[in-house]
Amino acid sequence: MKAVCLLSGGMDSATLAYLARDQGYHIYCLHFNYGQRTERKEQASAKKIAGLLGARELIEIDLSYLTRFGGSSLTDHNLSVDRYQEDREGIPNTYVPFRNANLLSIATSYAEARGADAIFIGVQSQDYSGYPDCRPQFIDTFQRLVDVGTRDETCIRINAPFLSMTKKDILIIGVHLKVPYEHTWSCYQNEEKACGVCGACHFRKAAFESLGLCDPVPYEED
Amino acid sequence: MKAVCLLSGGMDSATLAYLARDQGYHIYCLHFNYGQRTERKEQASAKKIAGLLGARELIEIDLSYLTRFGGSSLTDHNLSVDRYQEDREGIPNTYVPFRNANLLSIATSYAEARGADAIFIGVQSQDYSGYPDCRPQFIDTFQRLVDVGTRDETCIRINAPFLSMTKKDILIIGVHLKVPYEHTWSCYQNEEKACGVCGACHFRKAAFESLGLCDPVPYEED
Repeated sequence: MKAVCLLSGGMDSATLAYLARDQGYHIYCLHFNYGQRTERKEQASAKKIAGLLGARELIEIDLSYLTRFGGSSLTDHNLSVDRYQEDREGIPNTYVPFRNANLLSIATSYAEARGADAIFIGVQSQDYSGYPDCRPQFIDTFQRLVDVGTRDETCIRINAPFLSMTKKDILIIGVHLKVPYEHTWSCYQNEEKACGVCGACHFRKAAFESLGLCDPVPYEED
Repeated sequence: MKAVCLLSGGMDSATLAYLARDQGYHIYCLHFNYGQRTERKEQASAKKIAGLLGARELIEIDLSYLTRFGGSSLTDHNLSVDRYQEDREGIPNTYVPFRNANLLSIATSYAEARGADAIFIGVQSQDYSGYPDCRPQFIDTFQRLVDVGTRDETCIRINAPFLSMTKKDILIIGVHLKVPYEHTWSCYQNEEKACGVCGACHFRKAAFESLGLCDPVPYEED
């Protein structure tokens, strides 16, 4: 069995790849660079994780055209990254329009070319911040698109095992699978240490704290 | 009104862009290079057509990762392009896995970033050769994906006006709209003149002949 795993280099995607391997899949990783602030940090993390888990392949994909379209603080460096706010309404400015459809389309092309049985994507709908392309209906609809848009004999299952999990749930799985979190990077800022205040840091720190664990990644305020 | 048009530089996509303009849209073109044999010819055609029709923008996107996945004679230059055969069963080897999902996902990101109302894609299900990502169900499902995967206030309509048309129907529209077909390129081969025997040439030639018109593009056997 072969699985394509979307490996950003963050805590969720590293846990995801270890989970897929634990389910018996040979792992084919895709890593995306799309002009995000933390591109180099994420890339290094993805390479390290792919090596440690024994992935058969890691393909890096340049999605820098998303930068040219603009409209997101993740890729437009003139916008500042929204801090996490519990009571904020609407979609935060880190939203990259329709990004997950781009990622999953590429993953499906790759999976069909390699004869893979599954795609693993680490999206969450619960903690995360109302991005429309992280909703369960989005994943369900994408599965239908794969079913109608590939060869009749192709059968690729989209797995989003973290969809209704919290960061804490994911961390419990990852600790059990011995995911090397010291090599992952989650923060949206591109500083030496994690900023501790962006949405990604907020949820990651809370997850480690809720389990009484120490996050091995250094934070600004430490 | 703004429309994103997928402009390959071929006969169909040129007609498509002129049709969208005729419907009152301001035109934003996307052109894709994915390591296809005829990349440079198509690129030149797309630029020429975009200029002639007064497009507001033409963005070229590098999809060369599709080459790295392999599996299609359009992008794997070790495979030869299938000649057109009326009685061939199955999908021809020019099929690039899930290509149209990649193209439409990028178009949707672009459309949402620009506040566009519509995307125009020139796929045909009738003449064309059983590519699974050219079927009407594929376009319908993609529309649902756009509806669930973009902001709630975003409303982007996927238009595939040629879906159930023949090449002849398309040509009738294009002649009426005065599309400059001398600047388009359809052939799958990368020769000085069009080969005349690949699937793309077969249908194009037949369309011009059926209307008693002379195709302004030169062919090998001429």
